[in-house]
Amino acid sequence: MASTNGMIDPDDVVMLLIDHQSGLFNTVQDLPVPDLRNYAIALAKTATLLDIPVLTTASVPDGPNGPLIPEIHEFAPHAQFIPRTGQINAWDNPPFVEAIEKTGRKTMVIAGTLTSVCLAFPAISAIEAGYKAYCVVDASGNWSKMATDLTIARITQAGAIPMDTFAMVAELMRTWNRAEGSQFGAIIAEHIVPTYKCLMESYDKAQAVVKDGPETMMDRYQ
Amino acid sequence: MASTNGMIDPDDVVMLLIDHQSGLFNTVQDLPVPDLRNYAIALAKTATLLDIPVLTTASVPDGPNGPLIPEIHEFAPHAQFIPRTGQINAWDNPPFVEAIEKTGRKTMVIAGTLTSVCLAFPAISAIEAGYKAYCVVDASGNWSKMATDLTIARITQAGAIPMDTFAMVAELMRTWNRAEGSQFGAIIAEHIVPTYKCLMESYDKAQAVVKDGPETMMDRYQ
Amino acid sequence: MASTNGMIDPDDVVMLLIDHQSGLFNTVQDLPVPDLRNYAIALAKTATLLDIPVLTTASVPDGPNGPLIPEIHEFAPHAQFIPRTGQINAWDNPPFVEAIEKTGRKTMVIAGTLTSVCLAFPAISAIEAGYKAYCVVDASGNWSKMATDLTIARITQAGAIPMDTFAMVAELMRTWNRAEGSQFGAIIAEHIVPTYKCLMESYDKAQAVVKDGPETMMDRYQ
Amino acid sequence: MASTNGMIDPDDVVMLLIDHQSGLFNTVQDLPVPDLRNYAIALAKTATLLDIPVLTTASVPDGPNGPLIPEIHEFAPHAQFIPRTGQINAWDNPPFVEAIEKTGRKTMVIAGTLTSVCLAFPAISAIEAGYKAYCVVDASGNWSKMATDLTIARITQAGAIPMDTFAMVAELMRTWNRAEGSQFGAIIAEHIVPTYKCLMESYDKAQAVVKDGPETMMDRYQ
Amino acid sequence: MASTNGMIDPDDVVMLLIDHQSGLFNTVQDLPVPDLRNYAIALAKTATLLDIPVLTTASVPDGPNGPLIPEIHEFAPHAQFIPRTGQINAWDNPPFVEAIEKTGRKTMVIAGTLTSVCLAFPAISAIEAGYKAYCVVDASGNWSKMATDLTIARITQAGAIPMDTFAMVAELMRTWNRAEGSQFGAIIAEHIVPTYKCLMESYDKAQAVVKDGPETMMDRYQ
Amino acid sequence: MASTNGMIDPDDVVMLLIDHQSGLFNTVQDLPVPDLRNYAIALAKTATLLDIPVLTTASVPDGPNGPLIPEIHEFAPHAQFIPRTGQINAWDNPPFVEAIEKTGRKTMVIAGTLTSVCLAFPAISAIEAGYKAYCVVDASGNWSKMATDLTIARITQAGAIPMDTFAMVAELMRTWNRAEGSQFGAIIAEHIVPTYKCLMESYDKAQAVVKDGPETMMDRYQ
Amino acid sequence: MASTNGMIDPDDVVMLLIDHQSGLFNTVQDLPVPDLRNYAIALAKTATLLDIPVLTTASVPDGPNGPLIPEIHEFAPHAQFIPRTGQINAWDNPPFVEAIEKTGRKTMVIAGTLTSVCLAFPAISAIEAGYKAYCVVDASGNWSKMATDLTIARITQAGAIPMDTFAMVAELMRTWNRAEGSQFGAIIAEHIVPTYKCLMESYDKAQAVVKDGPETMMDRYQ
Amino acid sequence: MASTNGMIDPDDVVMLLIDHQSGLFNTVQDLPVPDLRNYAIALAKTATLLDIPVLTTASVPDGPNGPLIPEIHEFAPHAQFIPRTGQINAWDNPPFVEAIEKTGRKTMVIAGTLTSVCLAFPAISAIEAGYKAYCVVDASGNWSKMATDLTIARITQAGAIPMDTFAMVAELMRTWNRAEGSQFGAIIAEHIVPTYKCLMESYDKAQAVVKDGPETMMDRYQ
Repeated sequence: MASTNGMIDPDDVVMLLIDHQSGLFNTVQDLPVPDLRNYAIALAKTATLLDIPVLTTASVPDGPNGPLIPEIHEFAPHAQFIPRTGQINAWDNPPFVEAIEKTGRKTMVIAGTLTSVCLAFPAISAIEAGYKAYCVVDASGNWSKMATDLTIARITQAGAIPMDTFAMVAELMRTWNRAEGSQFGAIIAEHIVPTYKCLMESYDKAQAVVKDGPETMMDRYQ
Repeated sequence: MASTNGMIDPDDVVMLLIDHQSGLFNTVQDLPVPDLRNYAIALAKTATLLDIPVLTTASVPDGPNGPLIPEIHEFAPHAQFIPRTGQINAWDNPPFVEAIEKTGRKTMVIAGTLTSVCLAFPAISAIEAGYKAYCVVDASGNWSKMATDLTIARITQAGAIPMDTFAMVAELMRTWNRAEGSQFGAIIAEHIVPTYKCLMESYDKAQAVVKDGPETMMDRYQ
Repeated sequence: MASTNGMIDPDDVVMLLIDHQSGLFNTVQDLPVPDLRNYAIALAKTATLLDIPVLTTASVPDGPNGPLIPEIHEFAPHAQFIPRTGQINAWDNPPFVEAIEKTGRKTMVIAGTLTSVCLAFPAISAIEAGYKAYCVVDASGNWSKMATDLTIARITQAGAIPMDTFAMVAELMRTWNRAEGSQFGAIIAEHIVPTYKCLMESYDKAQAVVKDGPETMMDRYQ
Repeated sequence: MASTNGMIDPDDVVMLLIDHQSGLFNTVQDLPVPDLRNYAIALAKTATLLDIPVLTTASVPDGPNGPLIPEIHEFAPHAQFIPRTGQINAWDNPPFVEAIEKTGRKTMVIAGTLTSVCLAFPAISAIEAGYKAYCVVDASGNWSKMATDLTIARITQAGAIPMDTFAMVAELMRTWNRAEGSQFGAIIAEHIVPTYKCLMESYDKAQAVVKDGPETMMDRYQ
Repeated sequence: MASTNGMIDPDDVVMLLIDHQSGLFNTVQDLPVPDLRNYAIALAKTATLLDIPVLTTASVPDGPNGPLIPEIHEFAPHAQFIPRTGQINAWDNPPFVEAIEKTGRKTMVIAGTLTSVCLAFPAISAIEAGYKAYCVVDASGNWSKMATDLTIARITQAGAIPMDTFAMVAELMRTWNRAEGSQFGAIIAEHIVPTYKCLMESYDKAQAVVKDGPETMMDRYQ
Repeated sequence: MASTNGMIDPDDVVMLLIDHQSGLFNTVQDLPVPDLRNYAIALAKTATLLDIPVLTTASVPDGPNGPLIPEIHEFAPHAQFIPRTGQINAWDNPPFVEAIEKTGRKTMVIAGTLTSVCLAFPAISAIEAGYKAYCVVDASGNWSKMATDLTIARITQAGAIPMDTFAMVAELMRTWNRAEGSQFGAIIAEHIVPTYKCLMESYDKAQAVVKDGPETMMDRYQ
Repeated sequence: MASTNGMIDPDDVVMLLIDHQSGLFNTVQDLPVPDLRNYAIALAKTATLLDIPVLTTASVPDGPNGPLIPEIHEFAPHAQFIPRTGQINAWDNPPFVEAIEKTGRKTMVIAGTLTSVCLAFPAISAIEAGYKAYCVVDASGNWSKMATDLTIARITQAGAIPMDTFAMVAELMRTWNRAEGSQFGAIIAEHIVPTYKCLMESYDKAQAVVKDGPETMMDRYQ
Repeated sequence: MASTNGMIDPDDVVMLLIDHQSGLFNTVQDLPVPDLRNYAIALAKTATLLDIPVLTTASVPDGPNGPLIPEIHEFAPHAQFIPRTGQINAWDNPPFVEAIEKTGRKTMVIAGTLTSVCLAFPAISAIEAGYKAYCVVDASGNWSKMATDLTIARITQAGAIPMDTFAMVAELMRTWNRAEGSQFGAIIAEHIVPTYKCLMESYDKAQAVVKDGPETMMDRYQ
């Protein structure tokens, strides 16, 4: 088990974004839906920045489950959508597995709504098929907090690696000392840790006071 | 350990629903009792839909523990009730184990109230006896949240697979593209994710507006 | 203020059930949506049992707000639906106020989704117009818990009376010693305090042991 | 007291947005900072849509308190910034009160970071000076949840009206049946209830299925 | 309103302990049931120590609501039990009000399960009848936390005084410098703040070390 | 690892109750202190009922850590107290290990305050020394909830078995069909699940109604 | 009521710090004890900076309640300690009231452990005696969160003004543009909002980068 | 895996304190920032007391991440700061690994902000490189609670040992019976369990009463 759990090799990754659908999002109870949406966008943008292949799919999108949220293909325009024919576990859909095999990559980065089903089932099947499966649990969304706790225990037991969105983005980018550094910074500040935006504003203001002088007019009062 | 943790083979499953008794329900603190009742019903209905054998039992139902909730046998009329003679661990009751052996199946799906006792003990004994044990923790109910956290750790360590009700139903049904698809949908909407009902109503209304026109009378005001 | 806050006179009540719509329900964050649905049903059934006039209305039901949940008119078939022409505050819709005036009653029992808007606005307007306004906050549903805390403070300050569903049903029925007693009991056990169902089952079993003897077979073991 | 607590007259409103500064935001503990930022933006955009005068100010922005978040003046370009000379209570700054008086309006809509200081002090002073004060508590942000609970009690006792952002926007817009209806809808979906976005996507998809047919390919399987 | 809200005159108090029944206790969700039981016992013992008249009653104790918990009459043997004939509001039961009147006292100390019904209704009726009503909310127990929040707002608005058990006991005893001082201390340590028991043990041990010497044998090591 | 995690053999157990001291109890934050005290008592009483050897020890009881709570030796009078000479890990104290060895038993049931130190260290040392270690985490008490979560992960990883008090008592007693059955029932109702007491009272009352007739006087009204 | 609730006149204030004792602190459950200690220190330091008279007292400090925390007199060396002779309500101790009267001030700033007793009772008595009472609830500490919620409702109803520590310090200092400005800043950063310390450090570093250049050595890599 | 999880050998430890920076601290959501700062200080002081080598590093401290908090080098003056050239995983910085190798020690004690990145990555890399990695999770700080839960699961699965600060300090000091005993006590009381300070004060007072007599003047009253 431990042998599969090391640092990710970004060049071996294929990203699976499964069933991020508007209707399913409205059943999510383990994290705020806007956060979930942002974390999924962060993964899509990261894959695009790093030329990581992305596969998407949806579970019966014609019914109340609703459509894929549009941002995923908007921000990962190279993503390939693989329609399903009813299977709950995306790994049971032969074209989906074939698309993975075609990439020649063996490290899965998976997020899926709902976590205990759409993330966990393909992760377990991937492990059984000999792949590494890194599971981005907070970019997935589940129907109850207890279900998420149980899913973390199950997938960890099965040998999949549980992760959060920030760790995944950081593990894929590896260093700030690269051309795309500021683009990664923007992904983090806009979609993962929005309080970081305040830090950047305070930082700029602190330096502006040195360069441009103060705006507070203490001397004007009485 | 990991070898036991794969996707479930529905044809090898026997479902054990242990000690879902009205009195014990009133000591449950780790999830709302009405949810617990619904999740147990969801398992019973799923077993019926898929012809999965079900065994039930009760712990001293003549005392304050109270009777089995009636819905289990109502919705799984094929379930077999095995009375106990005082044993806390249902696996210590020879007729219970004999009934399991008679099914010839090796994959246990277990839920039991209270989780840390009535679910955990038979699960651990089943593992020791060479069975696979999938534990539906949120269809069980426990006397404290910390006890549930501890039980998840214990049974996972012992090689049992921790799961939630939604994942169990989905893993047993496998695909929406089957005759019973809408019946599974009803189980989920009525007993597991009742917010899904709102999605279905909104979906129907959105289509009715296209087909039948709007009911809002913006033009009547002034 | 205090003068308006006494026990309710059931014969003076008109019940306003405002904007209990499927889409809006999916934005509710201050209580579980299935509970909210049940509490609204409890009010509808109570009004029917007691012949209390009920007015319903919806906010732009042709759009994503969705349709009224069907149970309200199902369980209060005498309810009158008053369409709106865009007004957010139902009290700004003249036909709605006229329908209230036609009842000749001066005590409003109000629930509305979302609480801080669809409940609070008509309640405040009703107070200003000289009515008593009893606000059933947990049969309303709001977009955030903090918004509910603020709304309780606001409506209480304005002279409306904040209440929960159980208190409202109990205050309207007044005594168990009436023909409809068991029907009220059913409303409470099915829709408000479902743990009460366990109590009833345990109660029946305890008496069955006296009448019919035990089912536990302690003597069969060993 | 109750006499001040009625529905707002939008034509009498001046909006005070006080000390929404990046540094102070990083001390906020009673709601998520990104939500706070969005709620402040919602107020700014609403004021712009309705031509409501807006006054802003900042507390020692040259130090660690940091600059005003830029979105307020970006989305309320007509807002007037009134520098302070050290006063904690903005009402103690004569130019601030003069700017209010110049509008001729008597209904204050106030939000301020931190709630128990920058919102509460001017609200109490405004009441003492004969104004109405509607306090948007969740567009303010406070250093502890207990401090917010205490502030709600204090300002309500003093005669100020506690409100949430959604209620404020809805109370100012009054009806969907107006030219700016869809712009208000966008403010709510983008800045206040982002789960509403999912509802709109699901709604559009449900209608697309009627108009354009399904995308699910159930018939392709097997 | 404020005029009723001063310190309690212990000599004017009659204590009403309403519907503390075993079955109802099992529906309590706003505080742990063992705490509730202890707080009710604390009130009973305090009344006995101070010769305060106590009236008890029960709501349909023959059904699932269950019997009065036995400790109340055990620890307040002078309490008078007034049977009801179905009325939900104990104040609607003429013998109950007559028993109050017979005491000649005008200050009610009330606790009742469930809070929003069995406490709130008699409190509001008492206020209307010209009594003072001190409501011991945490010695009552309610079916939901939100219902308790709403009840606190309602009874406060109506002029009843909301209190906790510790404050009530302390307000009735007034001083430690009285014969019953240590008995009050025992009530608090056993039934209200059991962590206080640890303080007393630590205190005694600290003094024993001075008087009797240490038991730790640091010098024996190595 | 899994090989150590089976059902407990009660005849092989020695119970270690480590550092349950009054001062340390006042630093416990992961569960209510009165619950912790009750759970420790439950273990002591269970050991006495089953003649399980018990060892106790204390960490510098002469200082602010305070004395052992007296109930442990009161309810397990056969327990042997082993003074320490400063060691934090009780396993580092040779007389403590010698006392264990003298019992000839290889299954440790351990509880200790604080969990992450006084429970975890001896448990890990016991595993390293070839013993089985069942850790009763909720009979231990820790300085923070996060510390408890971390400790559960650590000890589980090390091969110790995490458990709750109810499971431990049930696993040691094994069956209700034994002479001590009712004594175990009393331990559970008094010290572990006090809500069970309500069930017993309701049960008795339900049967009393059959045997003795009702006390409710519905016929007396009107 | 509202007439008493305006901004504080610092020149009319006497501060009452009641029963901040080490033993009582160990029973506090509504906020972290270290925060409580810091808030009490913040009040003491603020009083010293502004020459506000301070009265302290303790409830039976010779027993388990323990001594006054030493910091109060350390940081408010001008405070006068008034011993009590057993009274729970400090206002029942004649020397305490005489000391207040001697100051000639009519505005009480009160904090007391436990909130529902040691803060609430003197506050209510002060109101009855014609004083203004500003209650610093989070510098008090209570035995349960529900007790604090109830106390906030009770004292607000009685006409006392509920406040938090930050608001109190800010309301007393009124402006940053004064000689003691930085000393108030230190009180806030050290004792009330310690996250503010991070802001100051980040601010200094941001300016140091402008003045002294960067320390990050991006150019040294590869 | 289990083989790495035993008690720590303090003589083999090198402590890695990674990215404890003021800006990053302001993004921490899984524990209070002041607690985090104290826990990091506790580790620094402990390393100094025991002559454990300490390595620090920072992630782009010239930007909004901010400077290292000054206390680490203040309280561990022997710590060596290793600048980075952009790498997110400190283990990817060759000088950092070389500094570790130079110590000749194989047991890493690691804390890092943010936990899921700055702690987890070096821990996993250290395990892969053959080191033992003890991870002090609550001295690290993470951007969300769910991220911390996921990180605990990930690092435990990878074979790193999850721990809390108290356990780490206790495991390194091993016994109170050493020259530095009282210094360790001060670290714990000041930086880890500040409620312990109350215990020490109560302890001293209890003994003072024996030695010096009481200060309470019960005899002076009346």
